[in-house]
Amino acid sequence: MAQLLVVGGGAAGMAAASRAKRLKKDLEVVVVERTRWVSFALCGMPYYLGCVVKRLSDLTYYPLSEFTEKRGIKVLLETEVVDIDYSGRKAVIRDVKNGGEKEIEWDYLLLATGAKSKAHRFFPEIKEASNIFVLSHLDVAEEARRYALSLGHGARAVIVGAGYVGLEVAENLASLGFKVTVIEALGQVAPRVLDPEFASEIKEHLEEKGVEVLTNAPVKGFKIVDGKAVAVETEKGNIEGDIFIVGVGIEPNVDLARRIGVKIGETGAIWVDEHMRTSLRDVYAAGDAVEHTDLVSGKRTWRPFAQIANKMGYVAGSNIAGREAVFPGSVGTSTFKVFDLVVARTGLSEEEAKEAGFKPFSVSLQGGTRAHYIPGRVPIKLKVVADEDTGKLLGAQAIGASETVLWRINVVAALLTTGATVWDLFYTDIGYAPPLAPVWDPLITAARLLMRKLGEKPRKA
Amino acid sequence: MAQLLVVGGGAAGMAAASRAKRLKKDLEVVVVERTRWVSFALCGMPYYLGCVVKRLSDLTYYPLSEFTEKRGIKVLLETEVVDIDYSGRKAVIRDVKNGGEKEIEWDYLLLATGAKSKAHRFFPEIKEASNIFVLSHLDVAEEARRYALSLGHGARAVIVGAGYVGLEVAENLASLGFKVTVIEALGQVAPRVLDPEFASEIKEHLEEKGVEVLTNAPVKGFKIVDGKAVAVETEKGNIEGDIFIVGVGIEPNVDLARRIGVKIGETGAIWVDEHMRTSLRDVYAAGDAVEHTDLVSGKRTWRPFAQIANKMGYVAGSNIAGREAVFPGSVGTSTFKVFDLVVARTGLSEEEAKEAGFKPFSVSLQGGTRAHYIPGRVPIKLKVVADEDTGKLLGAQAIGASETVLWRINVVAALLTTGATVWDLFYTDIGYAPPLAPVWDPLITAARLLMRKLGEKPRKA
Repeated sequence: MAQLLVVGGGAAGMAAASRAKRLKKDLEVVVVERTRWVSFALCGMPYYLGCVVKRLSDLTYYPLSEFTEKRGIKVLLETEVVDIDYSGRKAVIRDVKNGGEKEIEWDYLLLATGAKSKAHRFFPEIKEASNIFVLSHLDVAEEARRYALSLGHGARAVIVGAGYVGLEVAENLASLGFKVTVIEALGQVAPRVLDPEFASEIKEHLEEKGVEVLTNAPVKGFKIVDGKAVAVETEKGNIEGDIFIVGVGIEPNVDLARRIGVKIGETGAIWVDEHMRTSLRDVYAAGDAVEHTDLVSGKRTWRPFAQIANKMGYVAGSNIAGREAVFPGSVGTSTFKVFDLVVARTGLSEEEAKEAGFKPFSVSLQGGTRAHYIPGRVPIKLKVVADEDTGKLLGAQAIGASETVLWRINVVAALLTTGATVWDLFYTDIGYAPPLAPVWDPLITAARLLMRKLGEKPRKA
Repeated sequence: MAQLLVVGGGAAGMAAASRAKRLKKDLEVVVVERTRWVSFALCGMPYYLGCVVKRLSDLTYYPLSEFTEKRGIKVLLETEVVDIDYSGRKAVIRDVKNGGEKEIEWDYLLLATGAKSKAHRFFPEIKEASNIFVLSHLDVAEEARRYALSLGHGARAVIVGAGYVGLEVAENLASLGFKVTVIEALGQVAPRVLDPEFASEIKEHLEEKGVEVLTNAPVKGFKIVDGKAVAVETEKGNIEGDIFIVGVGIEPNVDLARRIGVKIGETGAIWVDEHMRTSLRDVYAAGDAVEHTDLVSGKRTWRPFAQIANKMGYVAGSNIAGREAVFPGSVGTSTFKVFDLVVARTGLSEEEAKEAGFKPFSVSLQGGTRAHYIPGRVPIKLKVVADEDTGKLLGAQAIGASETVLWRINVVAALLTTGATVWDLFYTDIGYAPPLAPVWDPLITAARLLMRKLGEKPRKA
């Protein structure tokens, strides 16, 4: 009986394992996972921290028995793969608790090793302090919450890194009564995600909610006294705190891939083709350790997002089971909510579009979520980027206190997926009803403004 | 100086007038409008009735002065076009108040004559009763509200016709304290808009909110006593009431078009090409009187929706001013909200797809608006239709107590606009964040289920 060895029990790993087993009942599927969790939703950790999510087990999509009993997958928890013999189709696994090692055979290998934080590499002193947390896994989230809740109301939380996870943590700790400071090395919150004019709205909103935001403040290190951090040392001075959460970016976990000689792509993540095959026969990879194609620029990209990891896993599992599937790529949609504000982006920013060889231009506008005469209309700000030569849509960003912000961006994402133009956006038949949308939706108005430069009549992109 | 005569000051007429004047400053633009309003939002009337919208003037997008003073458009209110001499490029207009007629010249003519209710044709006795209202225009809405508010709390309102306007009126009158009954000739609410399983959810929701719904009850007429209706006579018995609102469908207003010999299309609405040109040179048409192409089936269709009327007007105005624009068509997105429920559809139903020559199949599923572990997750029901031979997306319907219902349908609408497939939907990069969307969005799950039949790998549509 052929055996599939899945390294990593996160979204990609479990999606692939489930898919392969479903299609090929006689395939033996073994998942090796270092922690005590599979099918975990790391994105939910900020909400666990803020007690929006009560139980740690709520952050798994399925109980273990769903995989082991219902789907017939063998899962080895608290086990890690320490070595792989590619030509011999073997792997050495180790029990992380008692250290016992054993050998396991495989016919197909799936690397779903995910991503890891850069925090420990940047700040080795983190391990010396019991009150600095890097939210790399559910068990750390549990430890962080236990520690946070042991502190009194009004205790000081310092968040290093104003990426979207940092901002979600800021909201959640503020909601628990913490005095929260967010520290960012670069000049804006959510750098590399949003243009500055959107980032500045988020900063203002955070400040209105009582969160202090310090930008342009690279962190030099932590001041640690008796096993506890008491301050972050930044180029703008020391910031004291009682609990510290560090989110300074992640990188693909490619150690095992390198060990067996799998090709690493130009992004630093594992290279795969659109069947999720690595450069080595019978070795597949999926999830946050893996790069893929950006459908807008055609270039390789690394986007460690759960929805992409799931699709990659699904595609890898299909192909391993012999049912051909392809993962064409993504367009780079990301979104987050911080207090009342919803932020979303898709595709390329003007800057990224220029780098990718386009001739981008953009329009920005303020609009509303409903007909002007219906109460509860929420203002939203939208920016759409297109190529001047062809009218091809390139990207969009939006912000406002409405879930529909994400969905307006999703409409652009759908158009980007199919290589659509500004004219396609203008003629997209957005549904209209007074309590649900304005008759000229901001998306359509944006397209109309872009057409001023391009002309009213579609040309071939 | 060339002159453009616009017949009708609604969405299409004013969009065309504004666009033409903006592009061609030396064009004389005259709008002739029968009522005392231009740029009116008839879709807002139910909300005016329910006092959600306070002032009648809130239901116009711009004050008259925006058009006359700022945009330089001549507007003749309470004036109608009674005859047109096509070869002589003249029209006879009449003051609807004092009856005075005069002649006006034109070089370009735009027919934006809109739609009219079938109510008076079906029930000529309506005009004999002072308490039966057909919401055909803002002034009727004012009269209806005045009458409604003159009745005491708990008065009985009877709504004839369970189309989406009827349902919106039901919600609004119920919110004023009326005991509301909705009567529908066919077997479900929102017929021709939604499949029965969606309609039945709406009916249940209305009943939960205290609105009585009578389906399969064709109306034979009204029982009128002393100039007031006291009951509707239906095949299921008489339904008594104090105020009656009739919404039994609309039809394109093509009287003037027929008079001058403009071609009427197979749908019964004015035929135009994609430049919004009618069959007669220099005569354009736009809005609810006009048919266009359904982008999914390629067939002609008539969709009297405001967002389409606006785009048609924009395109007509551009072309009249000499700047080429095309209106490719629509995909049939429509949406409404009734109490807490949001309903939306786009494209073709399975039945319509079969009629259009496709080989449709569908999947239906229940999903949620957020990650399972975030409070406030709202259940939604979704149906997606695709073609079995090609995998081409054909349509979708959704329902749930969330604005995002419409936006999920808008994502499908965007894909339909570009002729996309089930695989395009699966790989659409929907943004994910726990408080905003589940990691497997219902849209993506629907695509995955459709792929079970089609295969995992895209084929050319």
